[in-house]
Amino acid sequence: MSPVLTSSKVVAHLANGQELSVPVYQFKGSDNAPSVYIQANMHGAEVQGNAVIYQLLEQLRALDVKGDITLVPLCNPIGINQKSGEFTLGRFDAITGNNWNRGYHFNPQLPIDFAKQNPDLPFAQIKQQFRALIINDLETQLLDNPYGLDTAQHLCATLQRMAFDADIVLDLHTGPISDRHLYCPEYTKDSAKLFDIPHTLFIPSGFDGALDEASFCPWWQLQLAYRAQGREIEVAVDGFTLELGSQEWLSLEDAKQDSAGILSYLSAKGVVEQGLFNPATMTRYACYLKDYRALYSPKSGLVEYLAPLGRKIRAGEPLVRLLRMDRYGHDDVIEVIEAPEDCIAILHFASASVNQGTELYKVFTHYFTL
Amino acid sequence: MSPVLTSSKVVAHLANGQELSVPVYQFKGSDNAPSVYIQANMHGAEVQGNAVIYQLLEQLRALDVKGDITLVPLCNPIGINQKSGEFTLGRFDAITGNNWNRGYHFNPQLPIDFAKQNPDLPFAQIKQQFRALIINDLETQLLDNPYGLDTAQHLCATLQRMAFDADIVLDLHTGPISDRHLYCPEYTKDSAKLFDIPHTLFIPSGFDGALDEASFCPWWQLQLAYRAQGREIEVAVDGFTLELGSQEWLSLEDAKQDSAGILSYLSAKGVVEQGLFNPATMTRYACYLKDYRALYSPKSGLVEYLAPLGRKIRAGEPLVRLLRMDRYGHDDVIEVIEAPEDCIAILHFASASVNQGTELYKVFTHYFTL
Amino acid sequence: MSPVLTSSKVVAHLANGQELSVPVYQFKGSDNAPSVYIQANMHGAEVQGNAVIYQLLEQLRALDVKGDITLVPLCNPIGINQKSGEFTLGRFDAITGNNWNRGYHFNPQLPIDFAKQNPDLPFAQIKQQFRALIINDLETQLLDNPYGLDTAQHLCATLQRMAFDADIVLDLHTGPISDRHLYCPEYTKDSAKLFDIPHTLFIPSGFDGALDEASFCPWWQLQLAYRAQGREIEVAVDGFTLELGSQEWLSLEDAKQDSAGILSYLSAKGVVEQGLFNPATMTRYACYLKDYRALYSPKSGLVEYLAPLGRKIRAGEPLVRLLRMDRYGHDDVIEVIEAPEDCIAILHFASASVNQGTELYKVFTHYFTL
Amino acid sequence: MSPVLTSSKVVAHLANGQELSVPVYQFKGSDNAPSVYIQANMHGAEVQGNAVIYQLLEQLRALDVKGDITLVPLCNPIGINQKSGEFTLGRFDAITGNNWNRGYHFNPQLPIDFAKQNPDLPFAQIKQQFRALIINDLETQLLDNPYGLDTAQHLCATLQRMAFDADIVLDLHTGPISDRHLYCPEYTKDSAKLFDIPHTLFIPSGFDGALDEASFCPWWQLQLAYRAQGREIEVAVDGFTLELGSQEWLSLEDAKQDSAGILSYLSAKGVVEQGLFNPATMTRYACYLKDYRALYSPKSGLVEYLAPLGRKIRAGEPLVRLLRMDRYGHDDVIEVIEAPEDCIAILHFASASVNQGTELYKVFTHYFTL
Repeated sequence: MSPVLTSSKVVAHLANGQELSVPVYQFKGSDNAPSVYIQANMHGAEVQGNAVIYQLLEQLRALDVKGDITLVPLCNPIGINQKSGEFTLGRFDAITGNNWNRGYHFNPQLPIDFAKQNPDLPFAQIKQQFRALIINDLETQLLDNPYGLDTAQHLCATLQRMAFDADIVLDLHTGPISDRHLYCPEYTKDSAKLFDIPHTLFIPSGFDGALDEASFCPWWQLQLAYRAQGREIEVAVDGFTLELGSQEWLSLEDAKQDSAGILSYLSAKGVVEQGLFNPATMTRYACYLKDYRALYSPKSGLVEYLAPLGRKIRAGEPLVRLLRMDRYGHDDVIEVIEAPEDCIAILHFASASVNQGTELYKVFTHYFTL
Repeated sequence: MSPVLTSSKVVAHLANGQELSVPVYQFKGSDNAPSVYIQANMHGAEVQGNAVIYQLLEQLRALDVKGDITLVPLCNPIGINQKSGEFTLGRFDAITGNNWNRGYHFNPQLPIDFAKQNPDLPFAQIKQQFRALIINDLETQLLDNPYGLDTAQHLCATLQRMAFDADIVLDLHTGPISDRHLYCPEYTKDSAKLFDIPHTLFIPSGFDGALDEASFCPWWQLQLAYRAQGREIEVAVDGFTLELGSQEWLSLEDAKQDSAGILSYLSAKGVVEQGLFNPATMTRYACYLKDYRALYSPKSGLVEYLAPLGRKIRAGEPLVRLLRMDRYGHDDVIEVIEAPEDCIAILHFASASVNQGTELYKVFTHYFTL
Repeated sequence: MSPVLTSSKVVAHLANGQELSVPVYQFKGSDNAPSVYIQANMHGAEVQGNAVIYQLLEQLRALDVKGDITLVPLCNPIGINQKSGEFTLGRFDAITGNNWNRGYHFNPQLPIDFAKQNPDLPFAQIKQQFRALIINDLETQLLDNPYGLDTAQHLCATLQRMAFDADIVLDLHTGPISDRHLYCPEYTKDSAKLFDIPHTLFIPSGFDGALDEASFCPWWQLQLAYRAQGREIEVAVDGFTLELGSQEWLSLEDAKQDSAGILSYLSAKGVVEQGLFNPATMTRYACYLKDYRALYSPKSGLVEYLAPLGRKIRAGEPLVRLLRMDRYGHDDVIEVIEAPEDCIAILHFASASVNQGTELYKVFTHYFTL
Repeated sequence: MSPVLTSSKVVAHLANGQELSVPVYQFKGSDNAPSVYIQANMHGAEVQGNAVIYQLLEQLRALDVKGDITLVPLCNPIGINQKSGEFTLGRFDAITGNNWNRGYHFNPQLPIDFAKQNPDLPFAQIKQQFRALIINDLETQLLDNPYGLDTAQHLCATLQRMAFDADIVLDLHTGPISDRHLYCPEYTKDSAKLFDIPHTLFIPSGFDGALDEASFCPWWQLQLAYRAQGREIEVAVDGFTLELGSQEWLSLEDAKQDSAGILSYLSAKGVVEQGLFNPATMTRYACYLKDYRALYSPKSGLVEYLAPLGRKIRAGEPLVRLLRMDRYGHDDVIEVIEAPEDCIAILHFASASVNQGTELYKVFTHYFTL
């Protein structure tokens, strides 16, 4: 039995002066296991991760939690509360258009300088001192800036500060209409088999602003910096983005399953008793990020999505049917758009009408079995 | 075999000067059967009616069409093209907030004056002259106004002008996430059994701005005006709104079924050969508009919709589960909201997160079998 | 010197569970003068009324306040915080399109029934008992409703409950790009001369959902009900909407002037010492609501607003120049739209590009001097 | 006298099937002077450039135009037609949040490879062959892509294709509420003195997706590639972004002035008779892009903008006054935010209410006189 510590953190201030805050739930680890940070709902419509955190809390408090765990549901109160029509719009800042999950901070100079200045430091101290360094760099950026930070940077920095204390960072998202899939950094491919997620994207060491990258990039690039100096160290922090189905969808039953998958990973890492939870048996497919392709609509029209999610599609098989009711009586009143190459359909657009150039599907190409 | 006549009609002008138009498909009737006007997609996200018009066109052109039929898919190009995030926002004018389906025109003075001035006119002439009167009134409002009309009025008047030529008007909509249901005026309750729609709302003679009302109100109120003078005439024009499932959803297969239901109504009215299509056998439920109740969320939170659509729910049975992840550890982290009385769940909100006061479900209460 | 009492009131709950509240500032009257309720910023972009409340607070606390005064700035936190791009969108509920200032409650049966049941009640008791009645009716609607209220109704009812305690209700708005103007009920035309506002609209006794109407309608219709029974009573409550310039504009200096105008009205009513503030000398123009005309753009295009606000325009004088850059080389590349009749230009649209049917100007026609 | 050739180009397809196109106006040059491409209104609310193109057309057709000139007003019909409330939202794609002026194409490998492969090619042939190369690369990207392009890429590529034929590219924008300023690449600083624009930003050779960069980057980086090989060539194409005042503002009178400034630049380049138009005498200030600083609001609240645009502000002088009406009675009900260092205020935010982190002002720091 582990008690849940409850607190909250202010992450934004609205025009009418009110503060928006995130709830923070924490377990104090009974042992020296890795520490964990889990957040959900960075994009406003992607609510299912909150239910997963609910189920994790229900399970964890009945267990012996061996490492510190911090769980932050509803982590972007600006995005969550931004409606436009019935749906939640909050994928990007309504003022600027900035994707909320691109506002995290990474300073590429830090790993290079640190490795240069500490070529022979023992790994335990590297871990401690480098962590202190990136935390200090983040806090300086937050506090010590006469021109201030933009709204996304405020929000992201506050969340990232909590994540920087952890050895394992899980960011719970969903796709639009989507099958489950996992973003996993290439240096730790085997981790993908510890989750109950059938599709994995292996991502390279570059930084594009997301939380998973902001978590592992400093450490991965530190590894690369030491490697360039001829020394091999491990990557001390693992970060993953879990895409747990579709947006605007809540199911406590489904959440239980996803919570079990996360517990099997945490169990493997010793955060809860090893062997207590085990990954499900399933065929797991993966591809590299460069082979994760978006298909943009060559024409505008109304869309019937034909390719089932999570399934293998052969080149030439239909992905969508495009209906153009201004063209009745012509050959192009109905057109079928086909898969350009063999692929697995991972997600599709959430609306039944598209402009020319709207993303229809995202697919794994050149996929392989893990 | 009936040929399809194709044309288009300008309904709006955009800020960059471009015109937006609607496609117009027409059959010239081979006989003196009632004339029909069918439109779809007045609300931008409600696309399925377009597929139904596609299937109607496919069927009708293979038949002997006995009355004039005009079909207008994609009837609101402003709404259809208005995105905000992935979803189509076009339920209301983005500038004014006006619901597009509230911009039609009705002049309540016309039926009263007409009945007074023509107490003894034969019905055939009533039909002809009163139709000319309301058409003229509409066109005057459109053209002869030094202050102009607002954007919704322009669009609606252009569509209504086409509808005013018809004896039968069908406006194809969908709900948000919704079971099929029909808006049927009270004076023609039996018509509800001619469609393949399991749930019917009987609506009174008032005018609230929608196309079905704009079509039958002049004629129904003409009937009432004559009745007040002691003469009984029939209502010459029938208007219905068909809600064909959920928004942001397109299925040509489903559309085939809905097209069959419409053909069974048209067949009963002699627009196509009588007996060629027959209504499906099903239990049909109905309620009066005043008993069609919206349940507003008493609290904000994340929502799991529990009540299946189209099913009878007993008072006290669960409608939704509300998850409040800021309240973990408290009794109200999960709350169930129950049906206040016996009802049939017809539709629910399209998003999984709600504010206090967001419409959760709409339900039939005090329903009965047709 | 009058102390300011500070509190706040919850008016809404957001999807992430957080409450939104309004600040409430109050003076306890030293005497038996009329009580006053003033709110600002019901529409999100109309911020200047907040600055006016600031200046009122600064002035009032230095005076002897003789009647209770309640001031609620930032009265619609949902609208204030709703951005879409740089501008504040909050004129209507983003989910439903409902204008926030149309959600107030009025039960037309109450005055009729009350007058019938209390034909001879002394006026002092009428005032007390009828006020209790409408407050009770409002609270019942708020609390005793198994289907709940929508979001606008929640907000409006909470504000209206505070307003119902007052004898004078001032709702501070602004136009889009606008000159100052006042909505004044017809029964108290002379009041218009007590404010420093050059243009007044006289409004009839109907109810259209706004706060001023919700405040005076019960009392005005009570007067009419008694009059129908042959008894003359005064209207016990006055309600006004003040339009204080343009939206998205804040000026503490301008606010000082508007605060002086409000104090001159309050001074005339004895809420502060009579004679302490006097209305400015100015020519005041007025027209009836039916003569307040919106001019809708007959075409789409880019707009240069030519008619200066607050000025008399003769029929045929230019209101706007419409630029159609898709039409260069044609006569209609530039067109001038003229005033259809003599008028005073009160406000114009806030954007430089319009669709066909967008409201360009609102003007007083058939205006007269007060 | 030069005739205006009129045509149009399809740049997008809407969900209802309709095409959106841009008007294209062209002069055929009478001589061998540089060719010019000018577009306006890439961001929907920035309409004033259209009026400038109108005035340019009026002037140019009365002159002897010596180089080909293409003018494209209303160049982004998607953005122009995207309203959300009264204002035009079209700064970014409503579906994706992508800034429309970040969708242009640049392939950094092309200049490097070209210089390597053609070390000694005469400059006239470099110009011809390299232009053919980048045009071919653009067209291939547009046409030869089984996965298609996104909506912004479609639009931008079509415009860029026209711009690639020109030696001079002018992209006409405005700020939110803004003084005139010019983005000028560092390699051609003297050009800044040929326009009538008082403030110039010097931008480096990097590519960030905008049209000016997309125009000069290939050629500038070609210069750098040759320089790395020890050969000096000139930059063959000049590209500028002109920010001509505020958005949502149209003035044909102001446009005449701006058109004169552009003609003075074109005159200096020989596109129209040299000496016919001369730059106005004014003090011109400039700074480097890295010194162009955005000040983000440290707090949320209502904003009164105090610093006049185009004026020098000393460190510590007030920029904005922040009103927090939830804080009356506390010290922070009004706070002044000051300039962190000496600067010139160039533009400020368009709304009077801000969140924490909203951009308040953009300012030139470390500015100097040209």
